[in-house]
Amino acid sequence: LNRIKASGLKLRFCTNETQATREKFVKKLQGLGFDISVAEVTAPAPAACRILKERSLRPHLLVHNDLVPEFAEIDKTNPNCVVIGDAAENFTYANLNEAFRVLIGMEKPVLLSLGSGRYYKETDGLKLDVGAYMKALEYACDVQAEVVGKPSKMFFESALAEMGVPAQQAIMIGDDIVSDVGGAQRCGMRALQVRTGKYRPCDENHPHVKPDAYVNNLAEAVDIILQQL
Amino acid sequence: LNRIKASGLKLRFCTNETQATREKFVKKLQGLGFDISVAEVTAPAPAACRILKERSLRPHLLVHNDLVPEFAEIDKTNPNCVVIGDAAENFTYANLNEAFRVLIGMEKPVLLSLGSGRYYKETDGLKLDVGAYMKALEYACDVQAEVVGKPSKMFFESALAEMGVPAQQAIMIGDDIVSDVGGAQRCGMRALQVRTGKYRPCDENHPHVKPDAYVNNLAEAVDIILQQL
Repeated sequence: LNRIKASGLKLRFCTNETQATREKFVKKLQGLGFDISVAEVTAPAPAACRILKERSLRPHLLVHNDLVPEFAEIDKTNPNCVVIGDAAENFTYANLNEAFRVLIGMEKPVLLSLGSGRYYKETDGLKLDVGAYMKALEYACDVQAEVVGKPSKMFFESALAEMGVPAQQAIMIGDDIVSDVGGAQRCGMRALQVRTGKYRPCDENHPHVKPDAYVNNLAEAVDIILQQL
Repeated sequence: LNRIKASGLKLRFCTNETQATREKFVKKLQGLGFDISVAEVTAPAPAACRILKERSLRPHLLVHNDLVPEFAEIDKTNPNCVVIGDAAENFTYANLNEAFRVLIGMEKPVLLSLGSGRYYKETDGLKLDVGAYMKALEYACDVQAEVVGKPSKMFFESALAEMGVPAQQAIMIGDDIVSDVGGAQRCGMRALQVRTGKYRPCDENHPHVKPDAYVNNLAEAVDIILQQL
């Protein structure tokens, strides 16, 4: 990260993190020694808040407790849409039924999903991500969710706009073959897949997505990028 | 029910009930005054057991506690498939993650779903049905579940075979526009939708399924059927 910043390249952190506010997310990474600030982060919750305000939507939230503060300024009375994030332990049978009832009760159900990831890895193993629960609600209510977050095109375009960089000059580095690599490429960017985190060897046979290159870790990605300057 | 039985017509109860064994299910209906026996019931769990035995599959079960006895004779060690039913309160975050991990760990994931219903109604409101959770696992693991139960064609065909009646001479009565009416019609049967239970007025504008007739209740369905004898 320091080498990227020292090179003068523009940098943006694109996260689908919806288990915490950007503040908490940044603090965690700072604690790990990363040079990162809230202003450098593109995340789904603030993007969703913009949409809610623009369209006068009042959400019923099915999100992680720690994400709720991001929606502090949003009117949540008499909901006319559902916003789903990676609610983790909040994905209880009761909460899923409640979100479902709010949706099915609408004449035209509106479901915003903070990402469409299939699963992710934590220290105690793989976990279902928000995309799986989004699919459950989509099917039950016969609606299509609007995805805010990777791999949505709009999300990558926001990040590019915030940097003031055209897609052709940007490179995405990520561990998720669909959300990171596929999403960025569909937006016209190049993308490297790191063989860490949620990477699995079978990703290299993915039927639709092929990264521009594989790297074994972030440092190797930086090597490649700086070599080409 | 008594009028149907007295008429000499053959009768079969096709249920997607997976919250209890057939024994419990029948006892409940008997308690409500219905003349019904276990031998008259076609249900997903015994159908799944036949498939598991035929294909030497050892299931990881994500089902309702009360359904577990139906799988008593099935080897469940070292699972090579997942069987999902309407687990209700067992649809916890932990249990869903566990079923997911078993599936994603297989070279070729096999998911059997005891039904594909979207939701159902209980006294305390609408609840997500097994189909929604099936979709979540399908998406997370990029697999297609094999559905055992309505509206699968195989399930209706079993019921017809058990009665020894060709589809053209059979009539389905049900409250679910997709699982009951659509499934039976795709099998060559006629189907009546009752305007009770999970029926909703918007079912009458369903884009794909149109019942042969609507009836306000089961008694009215029997009237129509007996009139045509």
